[in-house]
Amino acid sequence: MTFDLLKIDPVTGARRGRMTTPHGTVETPVFMPCGTQGTVKALSPDELEAEGVQLVLCNTYHLYLRPGHRLIEELGGLHRFMAWPGAILTDSGGYQVYSMALLRRISEEGVLFKSHLDGSQHFLSPELAIEVQKALGADIVMPLDECAPYPSAIDDLQRSVQLTLRWAERSRVAHPDGEPALFGIIQGGTDKALRERGAEVLQRIGFEGYALGGLSVGEPKEAMYEIVAHTTPLLPADRPRYLMGVGTPEDLVEAVARGVDMFDCVLPTRHGRTGSLFTSQGPINIKGARHASDERPPDPACDCYTCQHFSRAYLRHLFVAGEILGLRLNTLHNLHFYLTLMKQIRQAIEDGTFTAFRTGFLERTRALGLNETAA
Amino acid sequence: MTFDLLKIDPVTGARRGRMTTPHGTVETPVFMPCGTQGTVKALSPDELEAEGVQLVLCNTYHLYLRPGHRLIEELGGLHRFMAWPGAILTDSGGYQVYSMALLRRISEEGVLFKSHLDGSQHFLSPELAIEVQKALGADIVMPLDECAPYPSAIDDLQRSVQLTLRWAERSRVAHPDGEPALFGIIQGGTDKALRERGAEVLQRIGFEGYALGGLSVGEPKEAMYEIVAHTTPLLPADRPRYLMGVGTPEDLVEAVARGVDMFDCVLPTRHGRTGSLFTSQGPINIKGARHASDERPPDPACDCYTCQHFSRAYLRHLFVAGEILGLRLNTLHNLHFYLTLMKQIRQAIEDGTFTAFRTGFLERTRALGLNETAA
Repeated sequence: MTFDLLKIDPVTGARRGRMTTPHGTVETPVFMPCGTQGTVKALSPDELEAEGVQLVLCNTYHLYLRPGHRLIEELGGLHRFMAWPGAILTDSGGYQVYSMALLRRISEEGVLFKSHLDGSQHFLSPELAIEVQKALGADIVMPLDECAPYPSAIDDLQRSVQLTLRWAERSRVAHPDGEPALFGIIQGGTDKALRERGAEVLQRIGFEGYALGGLSVGEPKEAMYEIVAHTTPLLPADRPRYLMGVGTPEDLVEAVARGVDMFDCVLPTRHGRTGSLFTSQGPINIKGARHASDERPPDPACDCYTCQHFSRAYLRHLFVAGEILGLRLNTLHNLHFYLTLMKQIRQAIEDGTFTAFRTGFLERTRALGLNETAA
Repeated sequence: MTFDLLKIDPVTGARRGRMTTPHGTVETPVFMPCGTQGTVKALSPDELEAEGVQLVLCNTYHLYLRPGHRLIEELGGLHRFMAWPGAILTDSGGYQVYSMALLRRISEEGVLFKSHLDGSQHFLSPELAIEVQKALGADIVMPLDECAPYPSAIDDLQRSVQLTLRWAERSRVAHPDGEPALFGIIQGGTDKALRERGAEVLQRIGFEGYALGGLSVGEPKEAMYEIVAHTTPLLPADRPRYLMGVGTPEDLVEAVARGVDMFDCVLPTRHGRTGSLFTSQGPINIKGARHASDERPPDPACDCYTCQHFSRAYLRHLFVAGEILGLRLNTLHNLHFYLTLMKQIRQAIEDGTFTAFRTGFLERTRALGLNETAA
């Protein structure tokens, strides 16, 4: 993978870039839809392509447990398995081990856990995390880390960051260079000194990109923005920066303004399945009785398939009636909303109008409550 | 609606025809996918169009209860509501009243029932069935009938047929002519004399098409074929004939051979959602562990999106993992199988090779168990 920095916004430092991967180019700043179990929930690969998606995230924890990375490898890798011609980034599996698996025990060696599916016991080490992701055939892989909860005592946070950095070193040893690209993950909660230390150590090891983990885990939004703003200047300009698991539309704009290039989040897809729709007029929940006879599309300003063909009344009917098409159309719309936002962000950086765009967007967002979950 | 009979197979009497509706032409023999609640389950209207669907069936019972025919009418009718530009046939609601609703009481006037959704009480008369379907804006509407269970005592069957014929007369009075087209429904179980009487009385009243109801309700398959073969010659050649709720691929071929033009059945869509796939090599159930590492598509002879992109292993993974995409891809494949069969049937009639096609199809089907639900 290579990364070309095409333009930097002189006011904010927002970056317009381009990654070149074995599975195509990726224009940054980029939002990666979550293809957790080898499918972006409710959508087909054709729809992703039509929406202009260039990079999806898949979850190592899920695919390792089911159907298994060896099976996927035997079948020609994850791209072929899920018929996705674009690029794939896989996480290390760590985050799901901490959030979904049962009976976790972390040691220097790695993490022991029981599958949430069948209770079977597994041991994930930094080396195995790399091995699994390489077997899957991902274009970008992530090292096993420890994601500390918020809040954590400073001692715990320090211990956790040290472990994460030792695991990062082992991951680099396990995969010294070449494809796939390996990113380093900076942990440290909201502690600036720990973030600084992470950025320094990881750069000494050397990675193809740098991720900020352990954010959007309950800390105040301003604290997250501050940590992002504090950390990105410590990173090399010529490597992509990935803010893991973030976020709302506002988060994307604000983090781009602080020098972030890559994002992933379940919000657009998960909200689609619960009927929460992002719109230029603010969030709506399509379940609401007030949409029952509303012939307007979810977002009159949107040019997605959903908004071009269907009324709120129909989408509400589908949702209330439990129809699969409702989940599809909602998901497609929300993803389109996110991808359109990223396109606007990229264009604004190119045009040198990012600050004006950001100001306008945030004013509208705050006025409309766009950043909140639809009620 | 007009119906043009383009060709008749000289050996069997199988018919190649064309319906012209306010929403496009429909090549017959035709299979109508079921769009029960205003959506063909798991598929989008765009996918239906791409598959060449020209006519879908929607269920009056479901749409009357939720979201309500008046609401759909206010929103511009069912075509606009579900964004379906092709033709729509609606049933009368009777069948679901008998099979799904609670506390049914049939009288001369109509049928009293309680909604399976909320227990609310409703009264459906032949006149209201017409009114609801006209409000929905269907291209072809069906009269309220009584569908007797199998087996029924001859007295019950006679009483039921008489009631159905009186309701047919009232339906015609309620909608004397013009669009939508109104079909007559012949009931009578497996009693040939009652079927004859139905065909005679309905023709005297006069309808734009004729349907055979009360079949595929538990009677032996041979009895169904015999009743179809006995009844179709009693019907006018210049009106389409519709075998309601039928059936398996074998049923379609056999009923076409007996002069039927139209079919609807939940099999391809419902089986798709339970993982049963129709293939040229016989039925498979994608849930099965034997597909876990099978890199072949469901049907190597199939050119649908599913078979062109995905392995059995992936489809099994999606099904086991509970992913919506699995239900989509299975449904799309099964519908493609049915539509391809109908296309082959139409072509064979045009080419004068229908008997050879039928013989070959039935030999393969019986050898492969294609007519059975996949195990």
